Amino acid sequence: MRAELIAVGTELLLGNIVNTDAQFLSEALAEQGVDVLYHTVVGDNPARLREALAIARGRVDLIVTTGGLGPTYDDLTKEVIAETFGRPLVRHEELEAWLRELFASRGRTMTENNLRQACLPEGCTVFPNHNGTAPGCAFCADGVHVLMLPGPPHECRLMWDTGALPYLHALTGGIIVSHTLRIYGKGESEIESLLHERIAAMKNPSVAPYAKADECMLRVTAKAATREEAEALLAPAVEEVMGVVGEWVYGVDVPDLETVCSMRLRERGLTLAAAESCTGGLLAKRMTDVPGASAVFRGGVVSYWSAVKEAVLGVPHALLDAHGAVSAPVAAAMAEGVRALTGADLALSVTGVAGPDSDERGNPVGRVFIALAGPDGTQVKECNFGPRTRAHIRAQAANTAFDLLRRTLERG
Amino acid sequence: MRAELIAVGTELLLGNIVNTDAQFLSEALAEQGVDVLYHTVVGDNPARLREALAIARGRVDLIVTTGGLGPTYDDLTKEVIAETFGRPLVRHEELEAWLRELFASRGRTMTENNLRQACLPEGCTVFPNHNGTAPGCAFCADGVHVLMLPGPPHECRLMWDTGALPYLHALTGGIIVSHTLRIYGKGESEIESLLHERIAAMKNPSVAPYAKADECMLRVTAKAATREEAEALLAPAVEEVMGVVGEWVYGVDVPDLETVCSMRLRERGLTLAAAESCTGGLLAKRMTDVPGASAVFRGGVVSYWSAVKEAVLGVPHALLDAHGAVSAPVAAAMAEGVRALTGADLALSVTGVAGPDSDERGNPVGRVFIALAGPDGTQVKECNFGPRTRAHIRAQAANTAFDLLRRTLERG
Repeated sequence: MRAELIAVGTELLLGNIVNTDAQFLSEALAEQGVDVLYHTVVGDNPARLREALAIARGRVDLIVTTGGLGPTYDDLTKEVIAETFGRPLVRHEELEAWLRELFASRGRTMTENNLRQACLPEGCTVFPNHNGTAPGCAFCADGVHVLMLPGPPHECRLMWDTGALPYLHALTGGIIVSHTLRIYGKGESEIESLLHERIAAMKNPSVAPYAKADECMLRVTAKAATREEAEALLAPAVEEVMGVVGEWVYGVDVPDLETVCSMRLRERGLTLAAAESCTGGLLAKRMTDVPGASAVFRGGVVSYWSAVKEAVLGVPHALLDAHGAVSAPVAAAMAEGVRALTGADLALSVTGVAGPDSDERGNPVGRVFIALAGPDGTQVKECNFGPRTRAHIRAQAANTAFDLLRRTLERG
Repeated sequence: MRAELIAVGTELLLGNIVNTDAQFLSEALAEQGVDVLYHTVVGDNPARLREALAIARGRVDLIVTTGGLGPTYDDLTKEVIAETFGRPLVRHEELEAWLRELFASRGRTMTENNLRQACLPEGCTVFPNHNGTAPGCAFCADGVHVLMLPGPPHECRLMWDTGALPYLHALTGGIIVSHTLRIYGKGESEIESLLHERIAAMKNPSVAPYAKADECMLRVTAKAATREEAEALLAPAVEEVMGVVGEWVYGVDVPDLETVCSMRLRERGLTLAAAESCTGGLLAKRMTDVPGASAVFRGGVVSYWSAVKEAVLGVPHALLDAHGAVSAPVAAAMAEGVRALTGADLALSVTGVAGPDSDERGNPVGRVFIALAGPDGTQVKECNFGPRTRAHIRAQAANTAFDLLRRTLERG
């Protein structure tokens, strides 16, 4: 089955919001063995949506739309699809009752435009919206399946699980399974060079490198009739690739470095704390993004001002005076300070210049000191990420800190 | 001028990455008076890219591609565009020299596939890449301008500024100017109902509401020959809309609540600290995302464990015992504790249940207490965000905390 995602919304074309629905749905459809071949975005414009639908129905057999189902007058998706596929909109009484009840239960006034949300194409499968007021739906016309989902990501995702997925399960055969090797500290082109002949030779499974801003990934993908057959194809391919680039792979099918750190800490029964200057809470935020973080992360101190480094972390005034806040001795003292303060087994610290300006001691933008304190002492790493954006330097500093922790935990 | 963005990359269709380039370029093109009418994404597949280019050249006069310029063998954008528009690839000697020098200066080995990056369509305008190794370019064929930019967002953005923008400045006439009113605490459909007649009546400027996961926006957009004329059209429209919904507008043309908080603190010469439990550093991270944060943000404590609340913030053990960590008295004590510890004028605190599980005292997922301590005392707000995702609850908790701070600063 070949699919096209059509997102409807002028706010996407104006760059007001990012099309994260496309990413979520692409991943979810691939898991169901659906080949997503195109993403298309059009504005809240009936003529251009009509044209996009005409192109899509000629080249795929599954069209998934997102957006344009809301209560406002620029929400036109249902009307245009109804007209294009000859499925008139009818008011669904059970939806109207549900909407009235929903508004009453929230003590909100139901406006006339909310009632338009009870209208859907004749004979469709209705997808209730458990996170909002715009229902979705699905139908098949002339061999093309059309799924309409709402645009707001939390509504789209929940409706995927509760409505679209059950609808699709009946339709799809075959399955795509991928494993993703996540790499930190080595660039896409170096990785590709190391693996070039293997990449060219492998068809099913296939191997492809992807660059992200701060790291790179290798995706090994197999297609088969069942998950078991796909996994049997994948196992030796993953092993072969790991034999070449395993040194830089921090995990397989893991979302990020912080999740790997969390797993390693948990396995070893250790806890972590963080003292942050230039990352300003990013390390702590990322550690606590991981569900169940409280088992391994005790907390931390964001010592953005030097006075906080002294008063809270106990960094000696003389040390700050002698070396400046951005220095190896201060990084070490911060890590040791927060470790003592929180009683954690291990403590990371970051101090550096995230920019846009260099510091008063002449440290250039991008210079960062990272320390890891533990029962066996403290190690400090100096990094120079160069004059990049503030967000990039902060992300790189956090990644490098997590990778240092991960390598230490995996070694010892 | 009408534009289409074509992103090339199977990683987008597999949902491995999000097409943030489309958002950035849409916004940047709109500012130049270019109407972006379509986003299209195709995989690393020559036939489908060829087809997408054929459709695009029939409906727009500016095509901007992103991705597929890298050194690896699935990077096919240049080859397919060269063939489609009859512009053979030629090796640019100055690019080859630049690449050799770049690799030498970084002490990296230059691989054969890197050399492919020195090849670009004959007669094109070359865009140097100051953030990577893949150059971009632009040319015009049969009245259609084609711009090729790299996929990695930090490369794409910098090349937009340094290469694409100067190229476009020569081509465009007319300009679109927008002002965005950012709203917190009121939903899209309520806002739209309040403004419905005005939205329907306004053409130039036009007004449109947009929902995001955690907030909503109103965008007022005007088109004119010059920026001055567009601004003259916009001023009375913005004033009219503010008259109706101004109560919930936290800023115009501001990126987010933390930037507004930063501005208000700076104007009043005040500093802030934060004590965080369930947000785990998100408040501090967002405050320090804002460049120049050190003028107003002293730092904070992430007291993820109760022991850290006691030992670092001085929250009395008896208080934790009597009310539990997720309670109004503990929120107040956390804010007051971090205020005393850091010497900040104002301090925010957040304690709550971000999920996935309720806490040991039976507080449901989504219950959050937010406190703001200052010289005139401490206010506490209880929020119940409901059983939403961890990320959503954390984001809402941070937004509510920032909005409380903003309203307090704007009142007093």
